[in-house]
This record gives sequence, C-alpha cells and structure tokens, in this order.
Amino acid sequence: MEQENASKLGMIVILHNAVIVTMDSESQVFQNGGIVIENDRIKAIGQSSSVLQQFSTLAHQIIDLDGQILLPGLVNTHVHTSQQLGRGVADDVDLMTWLHGRIWPYESNMTEEDSYISTLLCGIELIHSGVTCFAEAGGQHVSGMAKAVELLGLRACLTQSTMDTGDGLPASWAAQTTDDCIQSQRKLYEKHHDTADGRIRVWFGIRQIMNSTDRLLLETRDIARELKTGIHMHVAEIPYENETVVKTRNADHGTVTYLEKIGLLQSNLLAAHTVYVNDAEIDFLSKAGVKVSHCPASAMRMLGFAPVREMLDAGVCVSLGTDGAPANNRMSIVDEMYLASLINKGREVYANGSINPTAFPAETVLKMVTVNGAKTVLWNDEIGSLEVGKKADLVVVNPSCWSMVPVHDCISNLVYCMRTENIVSVMCNGRWIMKDKKIVNVNEEEVISVAKLASAELLKRAGIKIPNRMNII
Amino acid sequence: MEQENASKLGMIVILHNAVIVTMDSESQVFQNGGIVIENDRIKAIGQSSSVLQQFSTLAHQIIDLDGQILLPGLVNTHVHTSQQLGRGVADDVDLMTWLHGRIWPYESNMTEEDSYISTLLCGIELIHSGVTCFAEAGGQHVSGMAKAVELLGLRACLTQSTMDTGDGLPASWAAQTTDDCIQSQRKLYEKHHDTADGRIRVWFGIRQIMNSTDRLLLETRDIARELKTGIHMHVAEIPYENETVVKTRNADHGTVTYLEKIGLLQSNLLAAHTVYVNDAEIDFLSKAGVKVSHCPASAMRMLGFAPVREMLDAGVCVSLGTDGAPANNRMSIVDEMYLASLINKGREVYANGSINPTAFPAETVLKMVTVNGAKTVLWNDEIGSLEVGKKADLVVVNPSCWSMVPVHDCISNLVYCMRTENIVSVMCNGRWIMKDKKIVNVNEEEVISVAKLASAELLKRAGIKIPNRMNII
Repeated sequence: MEQENASKLGMIVILHNAVIVTMDSESQVFQNGGIVIENDRIKAIGQSSSVLQQFSTLAHQIIDLDGQILLPGLVNTHVHTSQQLGRGVADDVDLMTWLHGRIWPYESNMTEEDSYISTLLCGIELIHSGVTCFAEAGGQHVSGMAKAVELLGLRACLTQSTMDTGDGLPASWAAQTTDDCIQSQRKLYEKHHDTADGRIRVWFGIRQIMNSTDRLLLETRDIARELKTGIHMHVAEIPYENETVVKTRNADHGTVTYLEKIGLLQSNLLAAHTVYVNDAEIDFLSKAGVKVSHCPASAMRMLGFAPVREMLDAGVCVSLGTDGAPANNRMSIVDEMYLASLINKGREVYANGSINPTAFPAETVLKMVTVNGAKTVLWNDEIGSLEVGKKADLVVVNPSCWSMVPVHDCISNLVYCMRTENIVSVMCNGRWIMKDKKIVNVNEEEVISVAKLASAELLKRAGIKIPNRMNII
Repeated sequence: MEQENASKLGMIVILHNAVIVTMDSESQVFQNGGIVIENDRIKAIGQSSSVLQQFSTLAHQIIDLDGQILLPGLVNTHVHTSQQLGRGVADDVDLMTWLHGRIWPYESNMTEEDSYISTLLCGIELIHSGVTCFAEAGGQHVSGMAKAVELLGLRACLTQSTMDTGDGLPASWAAQTTDDCIQSQRKLYEKHHDTADGRIRVWFGIRQIMNSTDRLLLETRDIARELKTGIHMHVAEIPYENETVVKTRNADHGTVTYLEKIGLLQSNLLAAHTVYVNDAEIDFLSKAGVKVSHCPASAMRMLGFAPVREMLDAGVCVSLGTDGAPANNRMSIVDEMYLASLINKGREVYANGSINPTAFPAETVLKMVTVNGAKTVLWNDEIGSLEVGKKADLVVVNPSCWSMVPVHDCISNLVYCMRTENIVSVMCNGRWIMKDKKIVNVNEEEVISVAKLASAELLKRAGIKIPNRMNII
C-alpha cells in the first residue's frame, strides 16, 4: 500500500525535531524544525509543530531526529576519486617525485575497474564526511567513476584528466592528440551526462596549463560553452607554473592572466587551488565569475597559502575541496572546514604580520561547503541550501557526543568540533545513502577488501616502491 | 582461579598478530608482533610466534589483534582539562575578548565539581584519541581533576593555574598572594602526587610571565627542584608578551631570554607554545634541556607559527598538545598530528619563501607524540615506547577502515590518515580504559548529560553570553 502511494502520489517523508541550519539567503536556523520531502525534493520546511500539523496525514514516514542537526548536503569541489587507491604512495616527497615517480605511474596504469573501485572507496569516505555532491578533479576512466557514483547514490560532476602536451608524460598519455582529448570527452558527455536520475553531469577537464596546448584550451572553452557544462582545471598551483607561462606564453604574471587573455575565464570555470594570484588576477576571477576550489590540506602540504580572504572579499565564489588521497590524505570535507578556518586565520600572520583570530569565522566556512559549493559546481538552483523546491540532499549530525559537547555555539561547533564521527545519516536526491553510519547501497567491508587487493596489484604494475621509514622486522 | 593467579603471580595478558610500532631507539616495527603484559608492565615483546611459544602457557588471556596496529599510548603535553565545558565560548573573537570576556569569567566561576565534570568529559575525548598520559596546562581545582583522572584510569601531570599579579584579574584571583600560590600548590602536591597507583603526579604551574611576580618565578623554580617535579608554563605566546618583558623586566628579547637570566630554564620546565623565540633563545632552550609543547591548532588560530623545525634541529625536545577546548576546539592529539605535519610544511613558505613537502615527515610527528611526549612529562623511563620493563600504556588502531585503507605506508598513514574513528582500544598502566570504542570506567552518556547541564549553569553564573551567528528562529 505504501509502495503504491509512493509511486502514485510521491513518497512523503517528514524529518522533525531537528536544529535545521538552512543556509538560505536569510541564514535561517530552526531551533526545532521540520522538513517535508516528496520524492527527491523539499516540499516544505519550518517549525516542527506546523510542519507536523500540515503534513502528518500525508506522510509515509515520520522521523523524530531528537534534537540532532540537519545541514544541506556538503559539496566537495575538488577530489580525485581515481587516486583513492594511491593514498600514502607519495607522502613527504618532493614535487617531482610526487608527480613523475608516483602519481603518473599510478594513474597511467589504472584500469577502468580500478577507477570504479577507487571511486567506490573514495565515495564511502565522502559520504561518511557528509558529502552529497562532488566535483571530480579530472581522473582516469570516467565510465568507472560513473558506475560507482550511480551505485553509491551520490551526485557528481565527473571529469576526465586531460593533457595533450608536456615533458615526461607516460607513453600512453603522450600519444594522445588534442582531437583525441576532445573527442573522448565528448563521448563521455554523450554517454553519462544527466544520467543516474540526473545525479551525474559530465564536465570537461584541463589537468593544468603546462599540459595543454592553446588549441586544447580554446576548444575546451568552446565545447563547454556549446554543451552548457563546466570546465575543471588546476590553476596557478606553484610559482614555477606562473614562471613558465610568463616565459613561454608571453603573459604578464601567470596562468590566470593568460586565461583572461584567451577568454577562458568564464562563469563555468572551476579553478582548483589558485594559490599564486596577484590582485589584478583576483579581480579578473571576480569579474568573470570564475569559481575557486580551495584545498586547505593539500595547499599547506604542497603548494602554499592561497589568498582566500582576499578572493572572498573581492566577491570570488570560493568553496572547499579535499584534493586527492596522495596529496592530503584525508578525504574529509569536515576536516577541511576545520583546517580552512585555522589555516586562513594563521595566514594573516604570513600576509599581514599579525594574527587575527576574528578572520575567517565559522559561518564563512560553512557557507563555503554549502552555498558556495553548489555555485561552484553550477548546481545552486537545486542544491546548497535547504529550501522549498530544492533537491533533498541533507546531512544528519549528532552533536550529543564527546567530540562536540557542550554546544554553546552551534554554527561554530559544526566547523571547529564536528568530526566524521558526528555524521550519522546522509540523504541525496531524496534517498538515504548512509543511515545510522551504515552506507546503504554497497557493502563497505567488501569494497575495502577489494580495494586492498586492487591497490596492491596496481602499485606492482606501476613499479612503485615506497621506502620504509622505520626498521620493519 | 584466574583471579587468584592474577594476585599471586601477576596477571599475564598476551596481545599478538599485531603490527607493533615500538618507537624504541632502533625504530623497530614488528610486522606480526606480540607483546606480553604482566600487571602494569611490558614483560616481553617480539615476533608473535616466539612470544606465543614462550608465554602461552603462563597467560591468563590471549588476544588476537588480527593485524591491527599497536602504538605506545600517545602523550598530550598541553591540555586545559578544566576548559572542556567552555568549548565554543570564545570562537572567532579577538584575544582580549577571548581572555577577559570569556575565559577568565568562565574559569573564575568554576567549582571543584565543575573541574571534575570538565576533566571527565575531556578525558573521554583524550582516550578516544589514543591518549594515555597528559600534562594539564594549569587549571582550576586540581582535586577535581585528580578524582576524574583516577576514575578514568589515565596517567597525568596535574597543575594548578597560578597567577599572583596582572591587570584585570577577576577579584577572587587578584586576592591571591605569592605565598597563597606556593602553599596551595604544595598542599596539592602532598595530597595527590604519586597517587592512583602512581598514575597521578603533581606539577607546579606558572600561567604566564605577565601574571607572575619575580618572587613567584623564583620560588616555583626552587620548590620544583626540591620536590623533583616539573613546572608547566605558557611561554612566549604573543609578541606583546615579549615586548612587555623587554620593557618591564629589562631583558634583551623576551620571556625566554629573561627566564634564562633568572635560572628558570631547566630540564624540568615544560614551555607551552613557545612561538616567539629567536635563534639565541632556541639555543638557550636546547642547552637547558627545556621541553616545548607545540599546539598546532591553537597556534594557527591565535598565536602564529612556532619555529618547530628549528627547535628540533637544535636538539630541543618538542612534543604536541591540543591546548584547551575554547582555543582549538578538538581535543584530539590524532588531529594535532595531522595538523603538525601540514602546518609545519606550510610554514616553510613563511620562513623560507618556498614550500617543502619533505619537511616534517610522518616519523618525526609520531616521535613527537610518543617518545618526545614522554620526555616532556619527565616520564620517559616508564612510558613513550613499547619496550620490556616499561609501563603497559598502549593503543590499538584499526587501519582496515574507509578512513585509512589502503595502507601502503603504515607510519605515514598513522599520521596523515588516522582519525579518532580508527582508535579502537586503549590500555593504561596495564588496564583497558577503552575497549572496542567503549570507555571502560565511566558511562559516557551520563557524563555528557551532566556536562551539558553543568556547562549551561556555569556560563549563566559567569554572565557569558555568546552572540548568534545566524538568524535563529
């Protein structure tokens, strides 16, 4: 009977007795709120009492959240799902070893099955940290990723790692022409875009400017415009990148200046990292509506301090990303929130000579992983806040736990104290994808077992050996 | 029968089939290791097979750890247990509001019962993050702390917050004379030092130099020497502190220079934070054998970049601390390991102009929370590594979980990937204080309930009001 109703009238679920942090334009927080979900969308939101009064008789399920916190599903705007099997393969090594000795051999030896398993494993970690939507940074085998995302129930913008030039590329990659790059992505777009009940979108990728010909840059710009989709690109990561662009491409300062010159700075560009930008370039980003993904952990470890406060002050939409497992190594957007606040407070010493604990407050960080995240992935018409008509992507947080008690300041505790332990349940597109800490659609233990085997074999195939740090006996 | 044996011959427990990271002087890691515990001490350690062969018949309990990782109990060398009830009361505010508007009103209104509850709540978080021993940074009501530590089964060096001068102190504190400070600490020492089966030691505290007369500094130096115990002091936290010392105490550079001049730099001094020190002062610290507690999160948020690499290079023993809940707000030494590595890599940009991902490797960080932690609390003869004759303080880590898989580099994964989720069981002084994620000696839920009430009442009593960050309805 319930099933019949569900298919005919729409399945209606009420969650009530929750602290609902809506992240809407008025920053409304319901202290005792209720939310009504019909199929994949939010039908109503308000005080628990009035929601129950109005919708109880229509509901197929009524869940009392017992004072737990409801947040919009978090958005991770830069994650290499294909790199999950490579966690720990490149820690504490210099950048050249990282790239040429570890990551390229790893990635170029991946099969589509590896990408599938890697994305499953990564997706499990993302869900446990409250993520309902992510932007793949550009990885191997989009078809493998898509299969995993569809199964897990996540929402994602998938992107193929794309390079058509560059020194020292593995042979299989070096053989790729510009046409190959464009055509393979167009095929992936045709095959996977707007699939999985609309949860999967396909974007175009540019790994980074030093691995792209001008033709690739320009054709990517044009085709993404034609197909009305996004472009995901690593931008201004290290000083050497900017120096190379100045030298070889006759730009004044670096990558951002050059991208402005050739018209690639557009509102559909997701620029990852964007560490080495000057004031003029921040202005370019702002005027063009480019979105920036700030990855605090990986920046600290391998890149440097991005001028995030300055970008936000200039009106640039900055969101948060975890980067990939060999660069971080926690794929937890919850930890990135904590880091973003700490590191960007700390950066004030670097930028201005004195600490400023009032910089980068908790509410700014929370906005970065919700509203700004949704804008960054060009999906803010449907996700990023809990509002009537938006998709039901949400997270249930249990604050009544040793890691968050006492809660004197709920918003601040969500950023400074919350850990993945506090994330209890996650819903994406109206369906639970984690319930009471259990991933719903795959068997975690099985994925872990398969991932252990696949990663060991991949490393062997790629010839990657990691030196011992201690005296193993 | 078992009980009888246990009391007569000593209770013998074998843990085997574990990856044992001993942290001994040879950095031995047993890939399939076993450890024998008799009462509170380690009786044997080695390959599982030989340990089982030699001790199986004597053992009262044999536990197969199924490939999990065994670490020495982690040491948190700077934590304000009394501040746990004040988590979130002072986020994103300037330093003067932090201290005068929030922390001092909070601390000066605490009862002994509050300190007890606060330490219980903090202790639960410490145990969940693998801590078996901590150094209290100097808080209220040592008797309350001691009661909680004894009950939880932890090991600790407890210290009273001590000030005998300073602007704007709450009235009850301002009335304290130097003699009061010394006498009350001497009484606490007599009452609690070497209690709880030797797990509790009492140290002397100096909150910070701007709240200490010279007489307090000198008498603390002398009495700690007489009683052969340690001194815990906040040192060189902010530039203003150094400037004040230069102005009012006629020292060349700041606090460390002045402490050197008056003979307070000794091997029993635990200097917390120690952010603003020059090369000469690093040299003083090294020569005197002073121990430094680096608190990455709180430094990033409120203080600045400590020259940790330089101190380690100069031979200073640097360990890790979480600081207190209103300054961090996670009391997780596991997260501090991750942060220490990231932030100190990032600091290379600040100090030298370019990033260095090879700086501050995982093994250095692991040493800081084990061996160096033990030295910092002057307990390295008995804890800090898994070696025959040492106390059985240890942590069982489950790496076979979405947050740590795959494990290509065990040592690195422990620092970069491990989260509190991975900490399964904790033993202190030969007794399990957490088993399968369940705290053994107190009921977590009860402590959380009591802590919620006590903290709300304390804030009311202290007149602390926290402004809303969002539109609460």
